[in-house]
Formats: sequence, C-alpha cells, structure tokens
Amino acid sequence: MALLETLRAEARAAPESGIVAVMNHGRGRDGMIPLWAGEGDLPTPAFIADAASRALAGGETFYTWQKGIPEVRQALARYYERHFNKTFAPEEFILTGSGMHAIQLALDAVAGKGDEVIYLSPAWPNFAAAAGISGAVPVPVVLDLTGIAGSWGWSCDVEKIAASITPRTRAIFVNTPSNPTGWTADRETLQAILELARARGLWIIADEIYALFHYDGGRAPSFIDIMRDDDRILFVNSFSKNWSMTGWRVGWIKTHPSLQQVFENLIQYSTSGVAQFMQRGAVAALDEGDAFVARQVAHARQARDLVCGILGQTGKVRFAVPPGAFYLFFSIDGVNDSRAAAFDIVDHANVGLAPGTAFGAGGEKFLRLCFLRRLDQLEEAAIRIADWTRRL
Amino acid sequence: MALLETLRAEARAAPESGIVAVMNHGRGRDGMIPLWAGEGDLPTPAFIADAASRALAGGETFYTWQKGIPEVRQALARYYERHFNKTFAPEEFILTGSGMHAIQLALDAVAGKGDEVIYLSPAWPNFAAAAGISGAVPVPVVLDLTGIAGSWGWSCDVEKIAASITPRTRAIFVNTPSNPTGWTADRETLQAILELARARGLWIIADEIYALFHYDGGRAPSFIDIMRDDDRILFVNSFSKNWSMTGWRVGWIKTHPSLQQVFENLIQYSTSGVAQFMQRGAVAALDEGDAFVARQVAHARQARDLVCGILGQTGKVRFAVPPGAFYLFFSIDGVNDSRAAAFDIVDHANVGLAPGTAFGAGGEKFLRLCFLRRLDQLEEAAIRIADWTRRL
Repeated sequence: MALLETLRAEARAAPESGIVAVMNHGRGRDGMIPLWAGEGDLPTPAFIADAASRALAGGETFYTWQKGIPEVRQALARYYERHFNKTFAPEEFILTGSGMHAIQLALDAVAGKGDEVIYLSPAWPNFAAAAGISGAVPVPVVLDLTGIAGSWGWSCDVEKIAASITPRTRAIFVNTPSNPTGWTADRETLQAILELARARGLWIIADEIYALFHYDGGRAPSFIDIMRDDDRILFVNSFSKNWSMTGWRVGWIKTHPSLQQVFENLIQYSTSGVAQFMQRGAVAALDEGDAFVARQVAHARQARDLVCGILGQTGKVRFAVPPGAFYLFFSIDGVNDSRAAAFDIVDHANVGLAPGTAFGAGGEKFLRLCFLRRLDQLEEAAIRIADWTRRL
Repeated sequence: MALLETLRAEARAAPESGIVAVMNHGRGRDGMIPLWAGEGDLPTPAFIADAASRALAGGETFYTWQKGIPEVRQALARYYERHFNKTFAPEEFILTGSGMHAIQLALDAVAGKGDEVIYLSPAWPNFAAAAGISGAVPVPVVLDLTGIAGSWGWSCDVEKIAASITPRTRAIFVNTPSNPTGWTADRETLQAILELARARGLWIIADEIYALFHYDGGRAPSFIDIMRDDDRILFVNSFSKNWSMTGWRVGWIKTHPSLQQVFENLIQYSTSGVAQFMQRGAVAALDEGDAFVARQVAHARQARDLVCGILGQTGKVRFAVPPGAFYLFFSIDGVNDSRAAAFDIVDHANVGLAPGTAFGAGGEKFLRLCFLRRLDQLEEAAIRIADWTRRL
C-alpha cells in the first residue's frame, strides 16, 4: 500500500506548506484585504452566467458529449484563431473539469510511475503535487532573478533544463506567463525549449493560462507561434482567469493528434465530462468575452503599476516588475522566513499574502500578492504593507 | 512509457466495447426510443435548477471549499440521517466531480499499481476501466443467475469472492442495487462480504447509488445498516440518479475517518472542487428532494412492471425481475451476440438498448433497457422489442 502511504504523507504535508495555513489564520478578520488567492474580485460577468442559467432552466441537464459539446470545441477553435492567427480544428480541444484537471490528465497521459517531469520554479504548487500523486517525480529547475542597475528580472536558463534531463525524463512543464513570478518567456527561450524537447524526445506541457494578461504589447509569446503541428506539446488551460470563472471548474486541453482518443477516455474515467449548461456559459465566454478580457488586462496593468510604485518607494522591497500574469512576487529586506512574515502581515497589516514557501525552490524568501482587484483596496493594501516594512 | 501504451490500448478498445458504438449507430433516427443510457427522461426539477441559478446570478463564482461548502456537507449528513436512521457528521462527506470521480478517487486512495480489486460482474464498465487506468487489476466475480419454476434471480456467492482473494487484493467493489442486473444484496450477503473484508484486511468500495430505487419495501439494504464506524468502507455516490442530475457531474464520497485529509488532497490535485453555485443546487436536492425521489421510484416500479409484463408475454425473453435500480437486463432465446442484436434492434425496432457485451463477464448474452421513462413511450418500445423477438 505504498500509494496510500504516499497520499497520507502528502496529506499531512500539504496544509503546512503555506497558503492554506495563512488563509486559515486570517480568514474573517474585520477589514482584511485578501490578496492571497489567484483570482480577481469580480464575479463572472452576467453574459456568461445568464447563458448557463438559460441552459439550466431549459433542461440541458442530461448526459452529453464527454469531451465537450461541438459548440464549445468550435468556439475554442475560433478563440485560438482570433488570438493566435492560425487555423485550428475543433477536434484539437477537449473540455476538462478545471485547469487543474487538465494538468492532471496531461500528466497521466505522458508520465507514469517513476518518470521525471521537469518544471520551472518558483511555481504554483499544484503541478508538482499532482505529479507526485500520480507517481512521477517532479524536478524543479530554478529561474534566475538578476538585478542590473536597480532593475530586476526573472529569466530561464535553458542549459539548466538540459542539464536536468535524465533517461527517465518524459516532459517539461512550462508555465508562461508564470504564477507566481510573472516571468514571461520570450520567443527565443520558447524556441530553445522546443528544440531541446525535440532533440531529447520529450513532451512539453504548456500552461499559457495567463497568455492574454501580458503588459508588453499584445499577448505573451506562445509555443503556438513557433511549433509544427506534430510537435509533442499539450496545452493545458482554464476559463478561470480570463473570464472571472475561477469557481466554475472548467478548463480545456489542446491535445496532440495522437492523444485525442486517450484524453477522451481519461475524461470518461475521471469526471465523465462537464455539465452541458456550464458549457453554454463557456461558449459565451469564448465568443463574446474578448472585450471583458481586454478591460481586465488594462485594469491589471494599472493595478500592477500602482502596487509596484507604492512598494518600490519603500526602498526595502525587491521585485521584478511582472510583464505577465497578475501577481507581484517580492522580497523584503530583512525578511528570510516568508511564512512567518505572511502571518505577521495578517496580524499587523491586515493584508493577506501568499508566502513564497508555498511555491517551492527559489521562492522561499518571497511573498505573492494578487493585484487583480479594485484600485482603492489595492492602494490601501500596498500602503499597509509599505508601513509594515518600515516598522521592521 | 508503459502508461501511455496502456492508455492508447484502452483508447482503441473502449469505443468498440458496446454502448457508444450502438449509440453512434442509432443517434438521431426518426422515432427512435433511446433506452440505452443510464438516465431518466426528466430534466432536473426546477427547485434544484433555480437554486443553482440564483447562486450563479448572485456571484457565487469564486474559489470555495474544495471538499464542499459546509452547507452541502451538513445537508448530506441530514440526508443520511433521514434515510439510514443513524447520525452522521458533516466531516464524513467530501463532494466530488461526479460519481465516476468518486470511484476514481476511491481507487486512487486504496489501490496502487499492480494491486487487485474485486468487483461483481456483470457491471457498469467504467469501474473496471478506471481501475485499469490507475494501474490496478480489476478481478470480476460473476453473479449467478438461477431459475426456479420459471422465476429467475441473480445472487452473489460470497465463497466465490473469497476464492478470488490473493495477497495483492486490496478492495472489493460492491454495487447494490446493481447496474445492470438489478441484483440487490440482502442483509445477510452484505454481512458475509463485510466479515470477509474484515477477516482479510480489505477495503470495501460501496456503490449504493440506487439505494432508494428499491421495489421490495423501503430502500435497499446497505452496509450502513451493519457496519461499525471504523470499518474500512468507502461509499461512492452521485446526485445523478435520485434527482435527475446526470448532466451535472456532482457526486460525493462518505469517507473513512483515516482518509478525510487524503480525499481533500486528491480533490485538490484533480478538479479542485465543484462550482459553489452547483453546490447550492445540491443542497436543495438533498433538503427538498425526498418527495421528487419518492415519485420517481413509484414511477420506476410501474415502468418496470409494464416492461416485464410485455416482454414476459413473448415467452422468449428471460430476466430476473429487478428488485432495485432502473434497468431490465434480459436475454432473448436465440440471441447469442448481444452487440449484433442491439444494432439489429436499432435498425428494425427503432429502440436503443445497451448490449450486454459492455458489462463484462456474465453479461455477454444480455441487453440492458433503462425503464425510467414516460410509460407511453416505454410501452411502445417494449411492444417493438417483443415484435422483434417474435420475428427472430
């Protein structure tokens, strides 16, 4: 019963690793500004919610296509065509029960027990945990944070990825723009990773969930820009971030031609699909949601600049201005234990942050702040944190 | 990449095994009466759908408790207390992304690669398939169909289960009332299985999804009636059948005290929970749905008797009158290939049935008919099938 033992060990370890512990500590406090979770403060827009409610009231409550109704797969193809300037077939897309589910199924498809999967760290912790539960070994490659003349930036050394490959390596997981760092791969880095994967026969699992949350002109560079149709890349994605649908638990995979039937079966034997009435909401999001996303991205850019300005003025807070995603990942001079700091910031600044310990190797000294929030609250939170750093 | 090879083999095999192939053959025909799927013909009742829609419109679209909001777990405890006459704690229940998901997680928790899990066959095919995908070995124990004086009945020989146990066996999966046979374990059989599991240190995964669809007075006997609190039994369940919510993909697990945290983690790293607005619908189903279920069960009993009467009169159709669930599992004299027969019944009777080949060992010669449907349509379908048998 090795699996059960592993699961029990994971179960014991997980709540202690960070975010949940801080949330349990801070939840419900009067005046608390919670910036610890990876979601904005807007509910799902009405044009999406109403589409789902209409379908629900209309009786779309029966079993349906487990891989997604044709309409949602066609809408995904249209969405990709608009944003990536290529043509796509609806058959390339499989609906999943969240972005997390997409990642779990991608792992199931390409990595078995004892196989290794490389990922870039600091990272959203669920990827490595899901790999571990599936019996694979997650291998972190730490991004580099360098500062030149007071300006900091994260970067990925592809040579370090190459040096981490072993005969057991099956895949490289690339999250760009990255949660929590905001690191965003440029086209050259993507090309280098792709060539490495091709040369070594590895899969790429591309998590480009934040592709539209990019602040340097247009969406972020994508593997789609440089790949051939037969490159072994699985794109995991979610409706959560673009359309304020974190609570819906709907995601998708853009699959590889060789794996379409595999994923259909994996869906069948895990959740057997997504509610049809929710899929109607997903279609509305894809077909009618571009303007909402554009407003969210513009707002996030303002929010980023506001927070960076206030925290930067303290002279004690260090960060790379994130070119993508909607998090500020920062360290504070004199803070070495981010977990203790997150508890203290709850207690003495009444702001909820995620401790960098939750994000694995390379993140230990950092704190993560989600800035997709009303500007007045965000300004207040940033001022409170700045004051906290001055009292150190 | 053994896993990928396995998945590909499964992917090739699955569509050929039965139900989907017949559905693809028959879907969309004029006047077709589809009785192949495991769902009734009523949409989700309005009191459930409206509760979800209100929550959706009210902005319950954010991340929430991954194991289920407190209200739904409390409602589950109340539901069990009403129907099983014991007291339960909300903490015993974990919400899942379908009954299928509950089964997959239960398998993940108790059986690893190479472990064996025993199940009773004929059976709903997804259990064995999910076990196979998780790397475990599903071991069927075939139920017995015996006829005495023209009256047939399915039964479970617990000695056969005992004889199938090996050092690698980890669990016994018991679906009662059973899909597809309608076999319903009596209290003595449950007791014998429980004692066997206790003696051999095995888990029981109890699928009592159809417990309320029981036609011999009150709900079906349950392991809950005879178990101690610390018995190693996981109950997998779903909102699908009781409340016409097949399309929702929401289920639950009644866990063992030692595994509550394990399941919370398994949820986190698979789907990260169920949409909060759907959980409001689930609460309405649990708290306000007893009368709806009672009407459905009364209707199903009428429907069962109608179909059994018409098919029984042919003198060529053999079946055990099902004491539970909502399927008639029958053989026809002269029919040895149920898959070919299901195709022919589509073509020449315009009725959709599930071929017994889909239900594994012991089911090959049978056909499954779902009778949870309007009586006029059901009568028409039964007459068409009866005519088809007479033309054989």
